[in-house]
Amino acid sequence: MPKVVDHDKQKEKIAEAAWRVIRSGGLGQATVRNIAQEAGLSFGAMRHYFNSQSELLRFAMNLVSDRVKERIQSMGLFASGFQMEDAKRLLLQFLPIDEERTLEMEVWFAFTAKSLSDPELKPHSDEVYDTLRKIMKDIVGAMVQTEKAKPGLDEELEAERLYALIDGLALHRMLRPDTLSPAMMEAALTRHLDSLCD
Amino acid sequence: MPKVVDHDKQKEKIAEAAWRVIRSGGLGQATVRNIAQEAGLSFGAMRHYFNSQSELLRFAMNLVSDRVKERIQSMGLFASGFQMEDAKRLLLQFLPIDEERTLEMEVWFAFTAKSLSDPELKPHSDEVYDTLRKIMKDIVGAMVQTEKAKPGLDEELEAERLYALIDGLALHRMLRPDTLSPAMMEAALTRHLDSLCD
Repeated sequence: MPKVVDHDKQKEKIAEAAWRVIRSGGLGQATVRNIAQEAGLSFGAMRHYFNSQSELLRFAMNLVSDRVKERIQSMGLFASGFQMEDAKRLLLQFLPIDEERTLEMEVWFAFTAKSLSDPELKPHSDEVYDTLRKIMKDIVGAMVQTEKAKPGLDEELEAERLYALIDGLALHRMLRPDTLSPAMMEAALTRHLDSLCD
Repeated sequence: MPKVVDHDKQKEKIAEAAWRVIRSGGLGQATVRNIAQEAGLSFGAMRHYFNSQSELLRFAMNLVSDRVKERIQSMGLFASGFQMEDAKRLLLQFLPIDEERTLEMEVWFAFTAKSLSDPELKPHSDEVYDTLRKIMKDIVGAMVQTEKAKPGLDEELEAERLYALIDGLALHRMLRPDTLSPAMMEAALTRHLDSLCD
């Protein structure tokens, strides 16, 4: 009798194997064959779960998004209205300040780089981008609404500036972990938020 | 009698063919075979110029750096001492605000993404990173020295914040040219520099 394996659990296991392959060798190494090997499955068995490399990568990327969303939801932010401290805690979720967030960032970066030349992946990468952009806009909007921000702030411009800072820091941390520490990233974010307030 | 071809000119021609291939299909497409075809050369002829794909990519990347350097040198910046207007003009060279700079940025991005999993390319990608970081530090340092910056600025932190902003904007423009215009990038940079000054 064949062993009953939870299909969804197995897909997650494969996605996590994909993350490890991406992390150690870049997305160029994330072939179905290499991921199968990392997951301890035969190449043939992979076909039960994913029909193509793009589908597998999309699933791996969505799993990252889901986990970030769950983590944020479990933080109970803004329970007593909008607070700058909570805004900062939220934004720190998008910076690679620990092992878990570094892995997420690396998968995101590899996935995004590949999506530039893969029309199947592009809409999914764009969706992540837009979600993050909306979070930046909401934060800046709430800062203005609650009068925590300096008067006369250009919300659209400040949302982009905040978003660019976050992604720029994350990119630099990934490229040069030796020259940009988590403490420095957090200090840059704190300084930026302070500069928007009175 | 074989035609005499300027060896260096031919290498440049191949590097430019590599840029076009990277631009249209990503670095994954930048195989020696594809680049040869784009340059109108036989696969065998490529061996006269480059021994490996890494060597070719390194050359293509260095050619980008050289052109940026030449362009900046020809601008005659800071001829009458440090001026904020010149600092802004210099920083704009690192944002994809026109066709030429967009191509440079795309080659840089593709090259950097690959360098994360290619030990041969990493030192060259790091060198570009360090050069840019030094430019940011020099600008912030000069702003403090000439008392254009607000008193009490943390130079190290502000250099990183400025650098992260620049690379974040460039990254976003490349990922979503439809949502981030050159005018918006320039406005974000101007706003950032203003916020550092009195």
